[in-house]
Amino acid sequence: MLSLSDRVAGFRMLAREGQEEVFFSLTAAEQADLVSALPAGERRSWVRLLDPDDAADVIQAAAPENRETFLSLLDEGTRKDVTALLAYEEDAAGGLMSPRFARVRPDVTVDEAIGYLRPQTRERAETIYYAYVLDPDQKLLGVVSFRQLFAAPGKAKVRDIMATDVVTIPETMDQERVSQIFAENAYLALPVVDETGKMKGIVTVDDIVEVVQEEATEDIQKLGGTSALEKPYLQVGIIPMIRKRAGWLSALFLGEMLTATAMGYFEKEIARAVVLALFVPLIISSGGNSGSQATTLVIRAMALGEVRLSDWWRVIRREVAAGLGLGLILGCIGFCRIMVWERVFHTYGAHYQLVATTVGASLVGVVLWGTLSGSMLPFLLRRLGFDPASASAPFVATLVDVSGLIIYFTAASVIMSGTLL
Amino acid sequence: MLSLSDRVAGFRMLAREGQEEVFFSLTAAEQADLVSALPAGERRSWVRLLDPDDAADVIQAAAPENRETFLSLLDEGTRKDVTALLAYEEDAAGGLMSPRFARVRPDVTVDEAIGYLRPQTRERAETIYYAYVLDPDQKLLGVVSFRQLFAAPGKAKVRDIMATDVVTIPETMDQERVSQIFAENAYLALPVVDETGKMKGIVTVDDIVEVVQEEATEDIQKLGGTSALEKPYLQVGIIPMIRKRAGWLSALFLGEMLTATAMGYFEKEIARAVVLALFVPLIISSGGNSGSQATTLVIRAMALGEVRLSDWWRVIRREVAAGLGLGLILGCIGFCRIMVWERVFHTYGAHYQLVATTVGASLVGVVLWGTLSGSMLPFLLRRLGFDPASASAPFVATLVDVSGLIIYFTAASVIMSGTLL
Repeated sequence: MLSLSDRVAGFRMLAREGQEEVFFSLTAAEQADLVSALPAGERRSWVRLLDPDDAADVIQAAAPENRETFLSLLDEGTRKDVTALLAYEEDAAGGLMSPRFARVRPDVTVDEAIGYLRPQTRERAETIYYAYVLDPDQKLLGVVSFRQLFAAPGKAKVRDIMATDVVTIPETMDQERVSQIFAENAYLALPVVDETGKMKGIVTVDDIVEVVQEEATEDIQKLGGTSALEKPYLQVGIIPMIRKRAGWLSALFLGEMLTATAMGYFEKEIARAVVLALFVPLIISSGGNSGSQATTLVIRAMALGEVRLSDWWRVIRREVAAGLGLGLILGCIGFCRIMVWERVFHTYGAHYQLVATTVGASLVGVVLWGTLSGSMLPFLLRRLGFDPASASAPFVATLVDVSGLIIYFTAASVIMSGTLL
Repeated sequence: MLSLSDRVAGFRMLAREGQEEVFFSLTAAEQADLVSALPAGERRSWVRLLDPDDAADVIQAAAPENRETFLSLLDEGTRKDVTALLAYEEDAAGGLMSPRFARVRPDVTVDEAIGYLRPQTRERAETIYYAYVLDPDQKLLGVVSFRQLFAAPGKAKVRDIMATDVVTIPETMDQERVSQIFAENAYLALPVVDETGKMKGIVTVDDIVEVVQEEATEDIQKLGGTSALEKPYLQVGIIPMIRKRAGWLSALFLGEMLTATAMGYFEKEIARAVVLALFVPLIISSGGNSGSQATTLVIRAMALGEVRLSDWWRVIRREVAAGLGLGLILGCIGFCRIMVWERVFHTYGAHYQLVATTVGASLVGVVLWGTLSGSMLPFLLRRLGFDPASASAPFVATLVDVSGLIIYFTAASVIMSGTLL
């Protein structure tokens, strides 16, 4: 990995064309770092290359003390646009949108519209697909694609060829929901409107690819039990990396300490029947694994909009059935394993049938419980206003471990009472 | 959930316009089901609405016995295109591309090019952004955007305004890699070429949004320890759902049985010092959690192209540092927990310092080991030609559980030898 100053030195050795290519392939954070490291005189030309939405991203990614400087490098018009964009939350549709789009009046002809739009296409990259038809109050009346303009008779009115059933995005909509809308339909761009129906900008599909990647990465990292890294893996320093991971790991560890307490509670049973201890890892990990499965499936289905809060009852019914089925499968395998081992190795003592029954029955209970808690936890978290993806596999496993121990030792004390216990 | 026949009945009650809206919002699999369920006379009009790449997706999603019928419903030209597309692997760039694109000769003028392309834009939705400049052998010479054509002087030659440094996609490239290229740069469409440089089609960004979603879903589901569902969660039947989950769960369970064997090996130690058993869940889950973190981070970084096979040594060095740091943190917490509990509750007997030391030292070892195996397993899987995402959190946890037990009891027998053991 080159240091920033080495990379800047390398960058400055390139021809302008190569520099531009490198510059546009960087992430917003990298662009911010690079521009900050350039001599003051060279910064302006780079910042001004950016469209307002990209410039806003760079400023958001820059160190707080550099933001004013960045803003001051922009030309008047762009600065206004960027300042407006910076007022949106980064994850809202408003924060994604470009305020530059092609607008036409409903009563001009196709030829007039083309004549008016043509010079704009030279500079405004993001306006090419659609022209938006606005009334004098900037309210959105309809949309006409460039292709339609191109193909329509020159004398027709824009009003007569425009589509009026336009899908619009409220400016406060979460970017995850915006990406779902793009994924469901092959839109190239969608208009963003405020609550009065005034058009504020457009979101284009190429920005959505990045959003989808980012959101998936965030969910995956949370599911794995880390805070989201926010930078590529190899670029995160060792200390911040440990910090991102230690938080969750320590929290899970503190939760997991309850297992020591629970085990302590059953210490006498273990002392009397050490054979019980042998299956503790097997039992609790089965609960954890079935919980991971359930939570992962539900969290992803929520992120894709396939499952909503109101579906909780349907999900419970499905997961009870799945949990019972899976529990019975593992229970049978566990039961048979002990019976076979006993025949072959004679390891589990005189009461091996009781041991096998205890393990088998506990597995049904633990897997059912793991599946249910794994599938319901994301609902609970979302209901409470948290990100459901925080119900990570390790989190669910930790929760299920303690209850798994209780299920196991309770089953043991019922089944073995009077014999081993 | 409505049955298919109810949905078809509802669909047929809609006006044509509404039907089309519904039809285009369906996934390929749903379109295949719907069309198959329609009366034979109505099928043709729906299949012919589809662009060749979408028709190929529908046919791929249809039941094998229906595929021939679908193909026969297409018109001659489309059938040829679709048959060619079906020859590609579904996950390769060739399987994603549309064979319909706008092509121009290098030596025509801008006005001629516009005159030639204009009628095509009426029917060919996917050709609008760029026209591709091909030589007589269909080799790609350059690309000119519609915007550039629009803005250029009418008499200029296409050759003189086209861009020649075109990013191309080999037809066999994996779709995950294709989506990385789109995510890194804001392309609207990229040309697909065969190994001789002949242009075969284009991939457009709107198809990529879907690919990115799909790939992330697949990775997330695998990370959670299920096979990929391939359908929305609520639409998978209970029996297939159990089957998808039981496979991995049973495999993990069989692996986890080794913990019972390992514990059996240390049965005498447990019988002598039951206190050791109390911390077994805590120790193994710490290894599992740190392993989940590491494997998740590495798998996602691989999927995003941030980490390559050749980076394994850099990753090891980072993870050794991270694992040691995290292990020391958890080890300290664990050590202090036991010391404090002993002061307050007097639960761990006379040799509580030895117990605390054993637990603390084992935690360092187990977390380091979990982190290392979690981060290296995806490399190993990829090296062997498997999908690294199969190194799911539960898989790593299971692997680490057995070794965690061995580390713990070995540490115990060293530290407690002569006293408790």
